[in-house]
Amino acid sequence: MGGLYLIPTPLGDQDPSEVLTPQVLVLVQRLRHLVVENEKSARKFLKAAAPEVPQSEWVLYPMNKYTDPEALKGYLDVCTDGEDLGVLSEAGCPGIADPGADLVGYAHQKQISVHPLIGPSSILLALMGSGFNGQSFAFHGYLPIDKLERKSALKLAEKTAQTEGQTQVWIETPYRNLSLFQDLCQHLHENTLLCIACDLSLPTQWIETKSIGLWKKAEVSFIQKRPAIFLVSGGQPKRKDFSF
Amino acid sequence: MGGLYLIPTPLGDQDPSEVLTPQVLVLVQRLRHLVVENEKSARKFLKAAAPEVPQSEWVLYPMNKYTDPEALKGYLDVCTDGEDLGVLSEAGCPGIADPGADLVGYAHQKQISVHPLIGPSSILLALMGSGFNGQSFAFHGYLPIDKLERKSALKLAEKTAQTEGQTQVWIETPYRNLSLFQDLCQHLHENTLLCIACDLSLPTQWIETKSIGLWKKAEVSFIQKRPAIFLVSGGQPKRKDFSF
Repeated sequence: MGGLYLIPTPLGDQDPSEVLTPQVLVLVQRLRHLVVENEKSARKFLKAAAPEVPQSEWVLYPMNKYTDPEALKGYLDVCTDGEDLGVLSEAGCPGIADPGADLVGYAHQKQISVHPLIGPSSILLALMGSGFNGQSFAFHGYLPIDKLERKSALKLAEKTAQTEGQTQVWIETPYRNLSLFQDLCQHLHENTLLCIACDLSLPTQWIETKSIGLWKKAEVSFIQKRPAIFLVSGGQPKRKDFSF
Repeated sequence: MGGLYLIPTPLGDQDPSEVLTPQVLVLVQRLRHLVVENEKSARKFLKAAAPEVPQSEWVLYPMNKYTDPEALKGYLDVCTDGEDLGVLSEAGCPGIADPGADLVGYAHQKQISVHPLIGPSSILLALMGSGFNGQSFAFHGYLPIDKLERKSALKLAEKTAQTEGQTQVWIETPYRNLSLFQDLCQHLHENTLLCIACDLSLPTQWIETKSIGLWKKAEVSFIQKRPAIFLVSGGQPKRKDFSF
């Protein structure tokens, strides 16, 4: 029986051999069957990560929001037939704010072994870089678009951050970053700490944490159209929990 | 002005050159000032990651629950004096279920640039490997020890998982794994999905997802004393959110 390998990819246009582990590169060179979010970006990645393997040797299986669950389950026949199967999202870690989780779920149902691999995650890098509590945190994906729903989601998250010390984390579609920034400044308290982290792991990476009061006076137009993570502080970590 | 570099370390007794990126190894070879959770494990890591650098060249600064906040702030003088400063936790990513967040917070206050680096996180690997919703998840650290508090925390988390689709994640002190497992089986519904992920990124890695009903019939005594992550499903990801 083959296994299912979750393969992280660079978060931008970087050399895979600099930002991935040798373990991942060796695996990519070995696998021939890959479930991919986007064929074009997958082929570009494979060319960079394993240039010596002819493109024709890879069998790619599409995975997107239109992929039928039965088709996804069918891909796992590669494993039951005895070969390993890889999963690639467009950037970062499959299954984390990216497709892949469904396929992993089906693999568990079929008792196929699942192998997540070490690699870049913008959420994790942002949390590390924020200085916020990394012993309790919640990632919410996108905030609601509707103005009233968004406001109440933000107010609830700020309250949870304050009362439970839980760091609150969101992503945003890059062209909406400034609009989200304005909403954060409008709805959160002056003293609430906000971290904005752009272009994580890229040469242009930029991470800043300050109070909403100070953000209101900051010039941030350059965050527009850059991949960004937004985090709201849940206070300092409880130091007694350091022992893990 | 120097920067603050958050350096991940292997999750077990592995060769750093296999499970870390070349970017991290190059950085470790360059840095001479390091804030470390544990001096003994830090020296062992440095010896493996940069064998050509004499141990005497590294200046190590202790960081643990007894470290005075003023001392932590003082370490950042390395940066204001123009040199880069690294941070190492015992295993995994500094600041994520590990010390380091306070120091990062002080760095932001002093406008020192913060550089989180790509590397192993057992929480992230477990989430990828679970097949659970990676578009909405909460990491809670440890569950309460008190039996009644623990029960109500588990019930609340299960409800949040069901109503909001948010994956719930905990760590446990390895020698208490079986006790936590029994509590999960006792307090969660038969149909609730639980993932247990042990020894992440290690050769002995073991990840399984199934319903509480099936877990009750499973033999799991081998999870005791192994580093483990426990996850409860918040249902399937909302596929409309795949676009990030």
